[in-house]
Amino acid sequence: MKISLLFGGISYEHEISIVSAITLIQKLGKKVQIEACIFLDSQHNFYSIHLENMKSKYFSTQEYKKAKKLELGNGGFYETGLLGKKKPVTSNLILNLIHGADGEDGVLASLFDFFNINFIGPRLEASVLSYNKYLTKIYAKECGVNTLPFTIYHKKDTIQTPFEYPIIIKPTCLGSSIGVSVVNDEKELEYALDCAYEFSNEVIIEPFIKGVKEYNLAGAKINNEFVFSIIEEPDKKDLLNFEDKYLDFSRTQEILSAEIPDTLKVNLQNAFKKIYADSFNGALIRCDFFVIDEKIYLNEINPVPGSMANYLFSDFEEVLIGLANSLPKKHAIKINYQYIHKIQHIKGK
Amino acid sequence: MKISLLFGGISYEHEISIVSAITLIQKLGKKVQIEACIFLDSQHNFYSIHLENMKSKYFSTQEYKKAKKLELGNGGFYETGLLGKKKPVTSNLILNLIHGADGEDGVLASLFDFFNINFIGPRLEASVLSYNKYLTKIYAKECGVNTLPFTIYHKKDTIQTPFEYPIIIKPTCLGSSIGVSVVNDEKELEYALDCAYEFSNEVIIEPFIKGVKEYNLAGAKINNEFVFSIIEEPDKKDLLNFEDKYLDFSRTQEILSAEIPDTLKVNLQNAFKKIYADSFNGALIRCDFFVIDEKIYLNEINPVPGSMANYLFSDFEEVLIGLANSLPKKHAIKINYQYIHKIQHIKGK
Repeated sequence: MKISLLFGGISYEHEISIVSAITLIQKLGKKVQIEACIFLDSQHNFYSIHLENMKSKYFSTQEYKKAKKLELGNGGFYETGLLGKKKPVTSNLILNLIHGADGEDGVLASLFDFFNINFIGPRLEASVLSYNKYLTKIYAKECGVNTLPFTIYHKKDTIQTPFEYPIIIKPTCLGSSIGVSVVNDEKELEYALDCAYEFSNEVIIEPFIKGVKEYNLAGAKINNEFVFSIIEEPDKKDLLNFEDKYLDFSRTQEILSAEIPDTLKVNLQNAFKKIYADSFNGALIRCDFFVIDEKIYLNEINPVPGSMANYLFSDFEEVLIGLANSLPKKHAIKINYQYIHKIQHIKGK
Repeated sequence: MKISLLFGGISYEHEISIVSAITLIQKLGKKVQIEACIFLDSQHNFYSIHLENMKSKYFSTQEYKKAKKLELGNGGFYETGLLGKKKPVTSNLILNLIHGADGEDGVLASLFDFFNINFIGPRLEASVLSYNKYLTKIYAKECGVNTLPFTIYHKKDTIQTPFEYPIIIKPTCLGSSIGVSVVNDEKELEYALDCAYEFSNEVIIEPFIKGVKEYNLAGAKINNEFVFSIIEEPDKKDLLNFEDKYLDFSRTQEILSAEIPDTLKVNLQNAFKKIYADSFNGALIRCDFFVIDEKIYLNEINPVPGSMANYLFSDFEEVLIGLANSLPKKHAIKINYQYIHKIQHIKGK
């Protein structure tokens, strides 16, 4: 199978996406061949990057600007040649590896939808439900999956948290711990809010539960059946900072499954299934859960997890192939102007 | 002020959008000049349509194919001239008049976002929350606005409605009464479901309350203040069919305000404000409400209402101008590769 990787994007996670792509290349090549590496830069230009140039320095030094520019068109990405003639560089299967804005907020899903491009990644609705932490909460509740209690604040609001300290403050629409702070008492509140509001006009506040058990589970629906990763108990400090996360995104080494009872494993998988529903078809997602007093809470949905959570699967390439064969089909809409004809007929025009 | 109209789209409401655009042209021209009429056809090609060709027959006879093709690019739409040189045809303000898929589902909002194009219309998140009737329900509930009880079914499910007949069946993601049926008893159920499933794999079922009072209210946030239309009590049969709706979309004549007590008016406006929130900034929307036993229920959000609900405003052009000056700004994201530099430094590379 051939696939093209898309990475970069105008997002606070732009650099993480580069690391994610570089990492993933190491895991592909046996059953899945990389057709093109497509970089979306900070000006929303697409570039075709040679495999040998897939090194972080190539991007940070702006050397990528020497690469061939690409344009989006029907069915894929194109090089523009002489006399404006367009040459396709992708054979219509893209892996969306853009974390944060552009990749996870639904923008690229929409572009792919519009230009009729096959892709692995969250569709529009799944993106919006995952990207906005507030919508994730109300969606999870409706699916019958618990989340921690929360309140939402806007820049102008005065904060009166209903929770005891410590609390955790997050921008509603960012991932990778950006702008996130744990606040231990009121003195720390203002600075933490400033940090969060730097990235977003809206913040979400939750109680922060120290030493809570965390479990990550990735998966996808393939041929109408769920394929799950092992369950990981992330080895983390109270809160990963951005640099820790950064390194976290470059993982390739397979890890050991968390030592948990079978009932917990099944319950985590069931919670995952409820969240995934039909709207996540076509995506490999990672759900991060908390377990408190044996109760499961959804923390967040990563609809484009770091390096696709490859390290959680024993045969990652096989998962990609399965997923590529299970992409949701669009409902075909016929436009035949029957109503206009009818109304013209009635009007005698 | 200059503005370009965008209409058409691959949607069951394609024809309605054409009618909407033709209608709106009659209401513009004094304070708001039309710069370009941009038609999105059934193949996702954009065309620049001359004003004198803005007649339904021009589209239904496919004559539009003789018009100049346009391409999306940074800041707007472009004609491609000799040697692939691109000439802009819009000066960066678009009015999104595409109803249903493409226009209301978030796809065009994403394209405009990606290509940095100013537009009047719902943004990505607002689109998704309005387009999917299930998400509208759970969002409204969270905003503190009532909706009728409902259940969701998928094609494979056996239906056991918890409601007494009559019930109403709607595809979750379509507007303009498409695929919608009132079901009076069990015998009618199967046919009604077939109708709905023709358009969508998911349907929403609600109790159907005959003779319920309906009120439509349009509005927008302009300079941080709400500007409301008059409240309309739609003069309708139990359920408008698609053809009624079609004619409904071509309304230009101002109508009389519903004769309702001031408290109800204020309560409807308050419900509208709760729904609109910040995520609807930049859009002129119409909320359709039910009133049952003096209690207000949101029926649906139209994020691109038919002919922009122009007939509900006494000075529609002034509303457009105000809205154009109140479009939400994107949070600027700087990409400076500081983490990659740091990590390269740590690694000694």
